[in-house]
Amino acid sequence: MSDPNGAPPSPRATVKRHPERAGYDRAVVDPILDEGYVCHFGFVGADGAPYVIPTLYARLGETVYVHGSPASRLIRIAKSGVDVCLTVTLVDAFVLARSAFDHTMNYRSVVVLGRATEVSDLDEKSRLFDLFVDKLVPGRSAEARPANEKELRATTLLALPLDEATAKVRTGFCVDEPEDVDLPVWAGIIPLEPRWGVPQPDDLVRRGVALPPSVENFRRAGRPSP
Amino acid sequence: MSDPNGAPPSPRATVKRHPERAGYDRAVVDPILDEGYVCHFGFVGADGAPYVIPTLYARLGETVYVHGSPASRLIRIAKSGVDVCLTVTLVDAFVLARSAFDHTMNYRSVVVLGRATEVSDLDEKSRLFDLFVDKLVPGRSAEARPANEKELRATTLLALPLDEATAKVRTGFCVDEPEDVDLPVWAGIIPLEPRWGVPQPDDLVRRGVALPPSVENFRRAGRPSP
Repeated sequence: MSDPNGAPPSPRATVKRHPERAGYDRAVVDPILDEGYVCHFGFVGADGAPYVIPTLYARLGETVYVHGSPASRLIRIAKSGVDVCLTVTLVDAFVLARSAFDHTMNYRSVVVLGRATEVSDLDEKSRLFDLFVDKLVPGRSAEARPANEKELRATTLLALPLDEATAKVRTGFCVDEPEDVDLPVWAGIIPLEPRWGVPQPDDLVRRGVALPPSVENFRRAGRPSP
Repeated sequence: MSDPNGAPPSPRATVKRHPERAGYDRAVVDPILDEGYVCHFGFVGADGAPYVIPTLYARLGETVYVHGSPASRLIRIAKSGVDVCLTVTLVDAFVLARSAFDHTMNYRSVVVLGRATEVSDLDEKSRLFDLFVDKLVPGRSAEARPANEKELRATTLLALPLDEATAKVRTGFCVDEPEDVDLPVWAGIIPLEPRWGVPQPDDLVRRGVALPPSVENFRRAGRPSP
């Protein structure tokens, strides 16, 4: 029987610490990428030092996309085709143990290694920009004024394949040392439950413009954790 | 009058994109580091590629700390004194604009550049491990069984100075193009309001062990966003 968590795509993408938490199958990786919306994008600067920058991202099929100003260092370096790393982390709970040492967190993370390429076709860029907007609030792209050619050209869109993607997931309670289990200390988890607050219109919203369906639906759906 | 946001500590730590969002003063940087609890730690692997790994951290004074197994790649490489990058991001809201292009997020992030050194003194390590536990749930370290010498020795603790730390903060509503402001499209923000859920004890908590003061206080304080 095959491992439902899949096999590592490469030696460098193989989880060594806590390998029991690893998942390589897209059925494990994709839902984590789809639930998050901010990634931490790593690249090596001209000075040889690593840089880690938060940015929005979106997944479609076998690819994860990021976008940005052509002048930004992240975009300029990533576009040149060097190795980059895109990491997404969802925090689910604090895990309290009987010993200080065994305190930890429940989390789900994905690390994508690889090299990015630029998406230049304007029609494809347009569809992918809609994907970014709809990832934040599903249906929103149909309500907003679409990006025009000038805007599309002013933004660089990069595609990173999911060939080398690794998930790491911790769930459940603490694992205390056997000799600690009988200590009279409370142990358990404190779940993190993100909620979206009340949408606030800006001062310039025209009279008669109600909360749109995208935002209504978004609120009703109770979107899952970031 | 001096700039309340401070001056960049180095050219490479200077924010070029949206410089109006930058903050270099510790009065801007420290509260962001103290509110977050997961950082994304970047380092350059032996293969020259960048790697970005989520991990817990804690700040004390002029220094931010991370810890981990001596066998982990992150720890082994960072300990060798090469350049690393520690990034913390707090997401505050989705920002909806009248145009798809001007959708964005409100966030607060800190990027720390520098080189880490190991903390080896066991007393200092012990105090700093308590800091990690109390960062998750204040007061918790006094309730749990303290780390023993074996545990302290089994974990490497690294210190990264805050000399090159940069904050970047976006707040407020969207900035639409002037020609879009009169469009009959709703625009505003949807705040992200993380909440902690109901603490769940594990099955092994001894009878008579109540929810401890640290967790009670934590729940009551309504800890701010992650």
